[in-house]
Amino acid sequence: MDFMKPETVLQLPNIRQALIRMEDTIVFDLIERSQFYSSPSVYEPNKYNIPNFNGSFLDWSLLQMEKTHSQVRRYEAPDEVPFFPDELLPPILPPVEYPSVLASYTKEINVNKEILNFYVNEIVPQISCKAGDQQENLGSVSVCDIDTLQALSRRIHFGKFVAEAKYQADKEGYKKLILAKDIKGIEESITNSAVEEMILDRLVEKGKTYGVDPSMRYSQNPQSKVQPEIIAKLYKDYVIPLTKKVEVDYLLRRLEDEE
Amino acid sequence: MDFMKPETVLQLPNIRQALIRMEDTIVFDLIERSQFYSSPSVYEPNKYNIPNFNGSFLDWSLLQMEKTHSQVRRYEAPDEVPFFPDELLPPILPPVEYPSVLASYTKEINVNKEILNFYVNEIVPQISCKAGDQQENLGSVSVCDIDTLQALSRRIHFGKFVAEAKYQADKEGYKKLILAKDIKGIEESITNSAVEEMILDRLVEKGKTYGVDPSMRYSQNPQSKVQPEIIAKLYKDYVIPLTKKVEVDYLLRRLEDEE
Repeated sequence: MDFMKPETVLQLPNIRQALIRMEDTIVFDLIERSQFYSSPSVYEPNKYNIPNFNGSFLDWSLLQMEKTHSQVRRYEAPDEVPFFPDELLPPILPPVEYPSVLASYTKEINVNKEILNFYVNEIVPQISCKAGDQQENLGSVSVCDIDTLQALSRRIHFGKFVAEAKYQADKEGYKKLILAKDIKGIEESITNSAVEEMILDRLVEKGKTYGVDPSMRYSQNPQSKVQPEIIAKLYKDYVIPLTKKVEVDYLLRRLEDEE
Repeated sequence: MDFMKPETVLQLPNIRQALIRMEDTIVFDLIERSQFYSSPSVYEPNKYNIPNFNGSFLDWSLLQMEKTHSQVRRYEAPDEVPFFPDELLPPILPPVEYPSVLASYTKEINVNKEILNFYVNEIVPQISCKAGDQQENLGSVSVCDIDTLQALSRRIHFGKFVAEAKYQADKEGYKKLILAKDIKGIEESITNSAVEEMILDRLVEKGKTYGVDPSMRYSQNPQSKVQPEIIAKLYKDYVIPLTKKVEVDYLLRRLEDEE
């Protein structure tokens, strides 16, 4: 996705292609995380006595990462949404002048709290290789967690581009739905069940393909590093519904920018 | 690899399994990096005016990452080697008491400068999707670079475990080679050409398998995101020789610990 060419950013085929490519990243990240234990200590608030910090070990690690990345302009990009928007640092590089494509309030649409919540409570227990802690791997675990969370966040908030593209294609239709606060109607307008089914099928294939060492493919028990069905279920239960929430939240406010 | 169980760490089958698993990580990382331009600006010293810093944008990003990771004990682990060993911060967590498995001077064996050099000059130009800069992706590029560099560094310095295992298996033989400073003899003793061939074949398979969206596998032109032969060549020309260098450097000093 080339954000410097705004005329290409809102074309649905380009958005879909970007979303498909992000699946690979998310599957890779889940496979990497699956090497480690569930590691509840990483997620327990104040389990470790970190100076001047109130939160979990993951919160601390994620915040350090976001502080560094904010210095190099990560959160200026229209497809990046921080988990700690109030604690970022000023960039040390000159700003990138992104052509504006999304609505003015787009940075306020942020479901990262929900993402962190389902990731820690639903994903980690299902994909980690074993329950429990392994003290010496806390750092490695948090590195994998951060990669996965950032990939999920980017994927889910990409719904904003989908929403804007749909809005542009039918301004009058959306105006009616928005003025009537017809959330159900908006949801229906952005739902494409056939595409959703294809996503889930493709995720199972990707989980199988990327999760098995190909030189073991013909062995008796070529176990996938992460169960492919779990990846599909996580998309079905969390990624797709939260993406829709982003789209609906974005569309509900869309007339603010028309006034 | 469970470093808390030292009796398992020096068993060659366990070391090999760990090395094979690291290939997946490296292939994933190369695939992720291939989404972006070569981005020479990221690697040019003082291209950006970063306050109080002398070096490239990648150097700066890598140093921030290492500072944070050192605070959570990354470089206490026997398989992690920093790129900036003189600029780390003290840990904020209590130390992990790793059973000692490697020689006392092991942290002094560090080929990260060579790794950074071949990565920037040989890998990046061959795997990036296009030559040139894309200003708005510098941050994303450096994130991929750091992941890849850390994975390569871990893989290459894992040679220390191979070296120690071989030394333990034939102390008398190595004593003679070391006293005679017979570098050629040590190299021959640690070289297994059949295993090396298998690694290269497996990398081609992994590049093909992980680099192609499986739902496109039967399309007319299922192009791999990174050319699998390039991954094998990088191992052949850099990863394997540098691993051997680590092994030889480690073994040459091994009698220091016997005195």
